[in-house]
Amino acid sequence: MQIQSMTDTSPVKWHLAHTSWAFETFILKPYLAHYRPFDALFEYLFNSYYNAIGEQYPRAQRGCLSRPSINQVVAYRQYVDAAMQQLFEQCKGKDASGISPLIRLLINHEQQHQELMVTDLKHGFYLNPSFPAVFDQTPIDHANKTMSWIEFSAGNYPIGHQNESFYFDNEAPPHQVYLQPFKFASRLVTNGEYLQFIQAGGYQSPQFWLSEAWQKIKQSNTSAPLYWLKKDNRWYHYTLAGLLPIDWEQPVSHISYFEANAYAASQNMRLATEQEWETAARSIQENPNSKIEQIFNCLWQWTTSAYCAYPGFKAAEGAIGEYNGKFMVNQYVLRGGSKHTPSDH
Amino acid sequence: MQIQSMTDTSPVKWHLAHTSWAFETFILKPYLAHYRPFDALFEYLFNSYYNAIGEQYPRAQRGCLSRPSINQVVAYRQYVDAAMQQLFEQCKGKDASGISPLIRLLINHEQQHQELMVTDLKHGFYLNPSFPAVFDQTPIDHANKTMSWIEFSAGNYPIGHQNESFYFDNEAPPHQVYLQPFKFASRLVTNGEYLQFIQAGGYQSPQFWLSEAWQKIKQSNTSAPLYWLKKDNRWYHYTLAGLLPIDWEQPVSHISYFEANAYAASQNMRLATEQEWETAARSIQENPNSKIEQIFNCLWQWTTSAYCAYPGFKAAEGAIGEYNGKFMVNQYVLRGGSKHTPSDH
Amino acid sequence: MQIQSMTDTSPVKWHLAHTSWAFETFILKPYLAHYRPFDALFEYLFNSYYNAIGEQYPRAQRGCLSRPSINQVVAYRQYVDAAMQQLFEQCKGKDASGISPLIRLLINHEQQHQELMVTDLKHGFYLNPSFPAVFDQTPIDHANKTMSWIEFSAGNYPIGHQNESFYFDNEAPPHQVYLQPFKFASRLVTNGEYLQFIQAGGYQSPQFWLSEAWQKIKQSNTSAPLYWLKKDNRWYHYTLAGLLPIDWEQPVSHISYFEANAYAASQNMRLATEQEWETAARSIQENPNSKIEQIFNCLWQWTTSAYCAYPGFKAAEGAIGEYNGKFMVNQYVLRGGSKHTPSDH
Amino acid sequence: MQIQSMTDTSPVKWHLAHTSWAFETFILKPYLAHYRPFDALFEYLFNSYYNAIGEQYPRAQRGCLSRPSINQVVAYRQYVDAAMQQLFEQCKGKDASGISPLIRLLINHEQQHQELMVTDLKHGFYLNPSFPAVFDQTPIDHANKTMSWIEFSAGNYPIGHQNESFYFDNEAPPHQVYLQPFKFASRLVTNGEYLQFIQAGGYQSPQFWLSEAWQKIKQSNTSAPLYWLKKDNRWYHYTLAGLLPIDWEQPVSHISYFEANAYAASQNMRLATEQEWETAARSIQENPNSKIEQIFNCLWQWTTSAYCAYPGFKAAEGAIGEYNGKFMVNQYVLRGGSKHTPSDH
Repeated sequence: MQIQSMTDTSPVKWHLAHTSWAFETFILKPYLAHYRPFDALFEYLFNSYYNAIGEQYPRAQRGCLSRPSINQVVAYRQYVDAAMQQLFEQCKGKDASGISPLIRLLINHEQQHQELMVTDLKHGFYLNPSFPAVFDQTPIDHANKTMSWIEFSAGNYPIGHQNESFYFDNEAPPHQVYLQPFKFASRLVTNGEYLQFIQAGGYQSPQFWLSEAWQKIKQSNTSAPLYWLKKDNRWYHYTLAGLLPIDWEQPVSHISYFEANAYAASQNMRLATEQEWETAARSIQENPNSKIEQIFNCLWQWTTSAYCAYPGFKAAEGAIGEYNGKFMVNQYVLRGGSKHTPSDH
Repeated sequence: MQIQSMTDTSPVKWHLAHTSWAFETFILKPYLAHYRPFDALFEYLFNSYYNAIGEQYPRAQRGCLSRPSINQVVAYRQYVDAAMQQLFEQCKGKDASGISPLIRLLINHEQQHQELMVTDLKHGFYLNPSFPAVFDQTPIDHANKTMSWIEFSAGNYPIGHQNESFYFDNEAPPHQVYLQPFKFASRLVTNGEYLQFIQAGGYQSPQFWLSEAWQKIKQSNTSAPLYWLKKDNRWYHYTLAGLLPIDWEQPVSHISYFEANAYAASQNMRLATEQEWETAARSIQENPNSKIEQIFNCLWQWTTSAYCAYPGFKAAEGAIGEYNGKFMVNQYVLRGGSKHTPSDH
Repeated sequence: MQIQSMTDTSPVKWHLAHTSWAFETFILKPYLAHYRPFDALFEYLFNSYYNAIGEQYPRAQRGCLSRPSINQVVAYRQYVDAAMQQLFEQCKGKDASGISPLIRLLINHEQQHQELMVTDLKHGFYLNPSFPAVFDQTPIDHANKTMSWIEFSAGNYPIGHQNESFYFDNEAPPHQVYLQPFKFASRLVTNGEYLQFIQAGGYQSPQFWLSEAWQKIKQSNTSAPLYWLKKDNRWYHYTLAGLLPIDWEQPVSHISYFEANAYAASQNMRLATEQEWETAARSIQENPNSKIEQIFNCLWQWTTSAYCAYPGFKAAEGAIGEYNGKFMVNQYVLRGGSKHTPSDH
Repeated sequence: MQIQSMTDTSPVKWHLAHTSWAFETFILKPYLAHYRPFDALFEYLFNSYYNAIGEQYPRAQRGCLSRPSINQVVAYRQYVDAAMQQLFEQCKGKDASGISPLIRLLINHEQQHQELMVTDLKHGFYLNPSFPAVFDQTPIDHANKTMSWIEFSAGNYPIGHQNESFYFDNEAPPHQVYLQPFKFASRLVTNGEYLQFIQAGGYQSPQFWLSEAWQKIKQSNTSAPLYWLKKDNRWYHYTLAGLLPIDWEQPVSHISYFEANAYAASQNMRLATEQEWETAARSIQENPNSKIEQIFNCLWQWTTSAYCAYPGFKAAEGAIGEYNGKFMVNQYVLRGGSKHTPSDH
């Protein structure tokens, strides 16, 4: 629960502490009468990136925090949980409309960290040449062998969160966009199809790659997706169930934006925009006979769209406004969700 | 003509050689009968980034090419010019529709490098504490003091190149977009307005900055735009006419995307998207009484839009297809043009 | 036992595994009949830097090895210990002169790692703003207030290991050197004396610093020794007993070669050479009335000497020859020993 | 005269300006009555590293100083030369013993820069794939084919400058050292001998390399000395006369300390210490029949000794004291001199 394999990942222990911190910082401190923080230092230690709360312990050193121990972090969580119960008591019979959306947000925030824990663990364990398994082998996700193309006609389409369920601020406001006609693949690209790209010299063909990507793969000597390994002339990939021979029918996973883009270019295609993706996804919900598979609960899917604000987007006031808005630059949008995204998320 | 102040800039001499190289490589070699290259090594030395042509001399070392001398480069240019004249003779009375669009493209390519030469020279001379002047002082570009806001209503608008004049491939195909209602400023932000942002602590206020920007300005200790200098408690900026006291009515220049974004956030505003900018610009051409100033021939203007392909964009076949398409990632769109953009560009 | 605070430090767990690995690799595998390695992967995981043994797990990632767990590492140690017992049985009544020097070396190697564990732990815990204590407060090491200067006359002196006790290969062969007359301080520099250097502007005075040092302290903004902290205008330092007010009579510790050198220069003095240091140290052993204090079991002491081979030094054959010889470049010699050096070392 | 190929090299133009600056700064300003500096800014621009004089123009940007032009720098030199003549007039008939050692030092300083100009030019031109020649081909320096070993017996030997001729401060004070018996090679290692080391897998054999060296050559993929190139299965090296086939009888040049050290280790030998080298060199001057060749005016020769102060070394007071003393760390001593060292140096 202690290891941090790179700056972008965090120890399992840290995730547990940080999600507890979020309830303490955004709910208990401002709303629970007479709340006493568990440990004054934690405000600093487990603040991820909220400048309005204060300085943050350096992200790259999270793996060096051997204290608080996991037992202390669990005690922290229990303390916060108990205080949340007190808050619920305090709110009984009163108007809690100021607090409840925040609580809902923090539950969803915690679900994001549940997924991150698994993702970070995978990267951390991958650095171990014994390739430890986290879970038993999970059932494999196969789609129809044949990829077909679903057509969408030109027109104005709705984008953004449209109903009463929970949403993150960056999914709003709902608005319309005009889309040119486009075709959308009925399923994801398989490992087998991606292997053909490799074998056809994809990683040696500059014409498929963005300029920045080409420099990067040359410099890092990349020639296969993250977690792929060739041993005795056979391909394996590291999974949460350990090192396994690659299943060629499974969708290819853990490829970068650059790799997704290059693969598409090699097929004379392109990635969908996030608006096209959303339109395709919405069509499934409206048409139970849709042929599109593997959209949800399968893999996060690269779109060609840069992460930006929806027209009319406005970050919330105060610290919580730093949740999403300040990251809208030099990032590209993934849609869908992973097998390890909590199912009610 | 020799200095290269950073990897992103090139020596003046290199620009002259490279634009000559472009005519030689894309026109003379394939189309002029019996053409003999001026120097076989130049194919490698002055190839900027075309992988389909071959390897390239390392960009960061362009400033180390003391040979060919400027006299040799001028001779190269005269040789290429003479060969182009021969080509024109060769084409007389024949169908030149395969060549002429390429020539037109390379003329526009050369105009881009004319502007780059001035821009690169400015950066190079700025590193010299004697702050040499390139030109005499140029007339100053003032707009109306009062900034007003021009309203645009919601609806579908045309985007992209629409007529018979020259355009780059990334300006096509023409298409429509749906825009929410928006307001567009009648003029650019002035140095004086930007100074207020500085004096109000803008560079010390994380809430205005994107997360990546905040880390960057903290690390680099940035507290004013590039080329601004404070001396004896007075502000100067380095210009092509040397180091001058800042004119507070002039539009602020040489600010980064991050600074533009932060300034807008500090005013509770945002940068326009490239589609909004284009719609505003088009409105001037259609309405001679438009109050919008400083759109063209003034300064390149940051939009909030990531550089991406227009719907239906397709890079040209072969080497020339590398001109624009492969750079469409992690860059943000500037619109307008600078005072040093050739006026017929 | 898991954290690694920088590339140069190792997790406590790793030290235990590596010292066990050393016995397994250099003794058990070659000398114990029918020995079966505990885990084949450990040969790679816990090889520190012996190329003749094989590839090594990347040093910077030692903190990411959450497996083997500490329990497994302890079991590894017990397995190796038991096998060593078997080896002793096997050797009974036989000539063990081929093995026993190696065992003696590995015991001394382990003592080095015992000290390293404490040193690395200190650095790791220092990154934790709760400043955990490792030990109870240790008695403080004070010397006479007055620093006097002990004179040594010119002449040839013996250098290097001279008797039958254990020594590392880099302490041999014994040889003589010619020394100019020199004076040697009777005690180490105190925290209080070093504070005067700070307060007199030592860190702002280029004339005291080596050129490389000056660039380094400017770039890193260094203005006090590692582990010193100023809080509410009072100086503290992080110790193995936690964060404590600085004791001004104690010798200054955790200063770099560059700082030691600059302090000496500021006093119009210089660091001793390793030959001068050794001559001074030897004089204590020969003269019980020597006024020189704090030579042993106090602090490692910088000399001005670059680490190099003694005349006639020859690294051992095979992997064990990599122990010391290959590091004899760009390092400077410390002499003495720390409070945490095992006392029979 | 403008190019700077890396931070460690300087443009030819800069060398000329800096040596003029040295006379202006250390002689004319303090000693010539009513001297007016040529250009106030030059004090900053052409100060190499003297903190006591003031801030320095960043070393890495010397290649960006397109102004002053070479004509201005030549005018600067003529101005300084003329002022030096005036100073000589002023000194006539007076005691100049305070000035003349400084002038002598600066003449020797200029000779160092004359050599550096050639060395830096070589590196700069090497980056040009046309491999320009600086000089006509110079006569090749061959020694006897057979390498013999000259024996020196143990004893105390004199080290350091011993007579009335010029010397740098780091060559003093003269002192004695005790040396163990050693053997010294009669000539340098040839290109042909070094090629055998390459062909025997020297660059793939960790046992010959210092640990830091091994990491470096692995990382940089080094497999031959700087300036060596293999083309069509034949070896060439870049020389000041252009790219030439390697002469296998010539001594190997442009190898790093690490390469020299590794070659020696591969022969079961070691580099000489600087004291051994000096003793060998002195023996030639004393014995005209010495068999030792290629000591002077051939190539700088790596010794195994770290650069450090001689016993009793004391840097001069003031700025001139920064000339040598502050670089005595993490550098290794070369002895001898190059073909391009001025012959009376």
